[in-house]
Amino acid sequence: LGQIERQQESLRNTRHIDVRIRGILNSRQMLFADHDLPAQWRSRLNASRSEADLQTFAQAIRERHLPNSVVVDCTATNDPVHLYEKLLASGISIVAANKRANASSQKLYDRLRLAQRRGGSQFLYETNVGAGLPLIGTVHDLNATGDAVHRIEGTLSGTLSYLFNSLKEGTRFSSIVQDAQRRGFTEPDPREDLNGLDVARKLLILARECGYRLELRDITVTPAVPSRFMRARSVKEFLRSLTQLDDWFEQKRKDAARRGMVLRYIASLDHGKADVAVREVDATHPAYGLTGSDVLVAITTKHYAASPLIIRGPGAGADVTAAGVFADILRARDRDR
Amino acid sequence: LGQIERQQESLRNTRHIDVRIRGILNSRQMLFADHDLPAQWRSRLNASRSEADLQTFAQAIRERHLPNSVVVDCTATNDPVHLYEKLLASGISIVAANKRANASSQKLYDRLRLAQRRGGSQFLYETNVGAGLPLIGTVHDLNATGDAVHRIEGTLSGTLSYLFNSLKEGTRFSSIVQDAQRRGFTEPDPREDLNGLDVARKLLILARECGYRLELRDITVTPAVPSRFMRARSVKEFLRSLTQLDDWFEQKRKDAARRGMVLRYIASLDHGKADVAVREVDATHPAYGLTGSDVLVAITTKHYAASPLIIRGPGAGADVTAAGVFADILRARDRDR
Repeated sequence: LGQIERQQESLRNTRHIDVRIRGILNSRQMLFADHDLPAQWRSRLNASRSEADLQTFAQAIRERHLPNSVVVDCTATNDPVHLYEKLLASGISIVAANKRANASSQKLYDRLRLAQRRGGSQFLYETNVGAGLPLIGTVHDLNATGDAVHRIEGTLSGTLSYLFNSLKEGTRFSSIVQDAQRRGFTEPDPREDLNGLDVARKLLILARECGYRLELRDITVTPAVPSRFMRARSVKEFLRSLTQLDDWFEQKRKDAARRGMVLRYIASLDHGKADVAVREVDATHPAYGLTGSDVLVAITTKHYAASPLIIRGPGAGADVTAAGVFADILRARDRDR
Repeated sequence: LGQIERQQESLRNTRHIDVRIRGILNSRQMLFADHDLPAQWRSRLNASRSEADLQTFAQAIRERHLPNSVVVDCTATNDPVHLYEKLLASGISIVAANKRANASSQKLYDRLRLAQRRGGSQFLYETNVGAGLPLIGTVHDLNATGDAVHRIEGTLSGTLSYLFNSLKEGTRFSSIVQDAQRRGFTEPDPREDLNGLDVARKLLILARECGYRLELRDITVTPAVPSRFMRARSVKEFLRSLTQLDDWFEQKRKDAARRGMVLRYIASLDHGKADVAVREVDATHPAYGLTGSDVLVAITTKHYAASPLIIRGPGAGADVTAAGVFADILRARDRDR
């Protein structure tokens, strides 16, 4: 909302685009505006007496029959997803940072595309994978223009990228995880990162964007740490238990280094076969030189055959994710009419 | 046209997009169709008795008042550029692989944007830089959402990338150029690649997309070989004279290698200051590991500050360029209405 506010005037003057915030809802309250929400929307929302209710919110938007309506879902829950189909079918576009809809069943995925086509609306979700990096849009374009995606390979989690990029001589895996958790780089429970499910969901979304029809269960997921460690009763216990893995990881790292390789948590889609696991990669692999929490995706297609199309950079963060959502909002206006 | 033809049915069925080719013009003839050009457009065009005339062609398109008209310019000449303004102002979108318009004066650049806004049309040119790689669109989105591009750095020419990536111990610069020229990797006259002007034009287009106002002459261009070599009277003489540079290049390469660096032909935009030259880059630089004729662009912005957004891959080739043009055509329909 801050980014939109700062750009409103420039968009109006230089691009003739008039972006207005007509309603907002958080988990507690909601707020509508007849023209545009004022800069003090935050205090107004807090002071609002309308209790948050998604059904009422969606109903209110539909009833207003505003041209170029876009509903933006920045939650990470299933609740708003239930409204997508109706909104799309009634001509209201959806921009989702929330990846729940696209990582759900193929059946829901198909239904949403059908509703979108019926309603002449847009469903955009660039930030589902790699935050603001232009991944979904690129795969979408390749697919729309008749290129065939043969292979996608990459690191799709900034957190896991950070953990494995930090694994060097003299480091201990348990300390890296503990430190990252303390600094807020991981989920409060780091197992939610290490189990690989979030990466699998992102790979599922990319695979479907390529035109493959599959379910989350079709992806072979090997967690970043042996699954017996996942069963610890608390985060504290889990973090403590990781020290048992230090020697194991050090041996894996050393063995790889002897072969000129490094360990990376790699998501891979190869002619429709999808898996997620720790892999050794050599110096010719694009993920070899990754540093920090950068993510990377290498796309090999019919046209990009000899050398892949590679996109790399920060794949998480509030600023870049917000900018990705904002770009989708600008893209959503009126395209399919 | 082949790519469009192969995708027409799929686009109609799965995306409700009906792409029709209503007219086509090459340097000799032109051809119109009332509905859609038949698959045998090539022979029909060759048999056409209408002599190619850009004014008549543009006039014919305007008079038909077709919704969502897009004119696609796949030439590399100035002739069609003169028609852009009138077409854009009359609501007809333009997709250009041709980079002449955007690399011309800032005045023309501004006039085209004004015409586009007046006409509610689109002007798209993703393939102006890096063929099908999502470069222009990414910079456009960063700019539209209020991010500020601080720095762009990269190799913008597949040809020059190839020449410098091939420079290794035991190679000779003159042989690399001669070989590349013979295999058609360079322009017929390799000086057109080596003078750096094509790279400067691409950098100019990227810089303007970031919002910087500048002319080609504001870019400091250092050719890839000393400029006195450019004055040879023929291609043959030029290629022969290059052998005088072999020792010089070998020394440069060795000096760089001693410092752990490699030579790359780098285009750089730094807070509005643009230059193009041979640079030494170290192993932490994204262009260090480039191979083959891949190009690469690293974008550092207010949001992508700690680590740049990097896009890399084949930046030339008929298939990927055509796909980039095709994607622009799909994007052009009706967005600003």
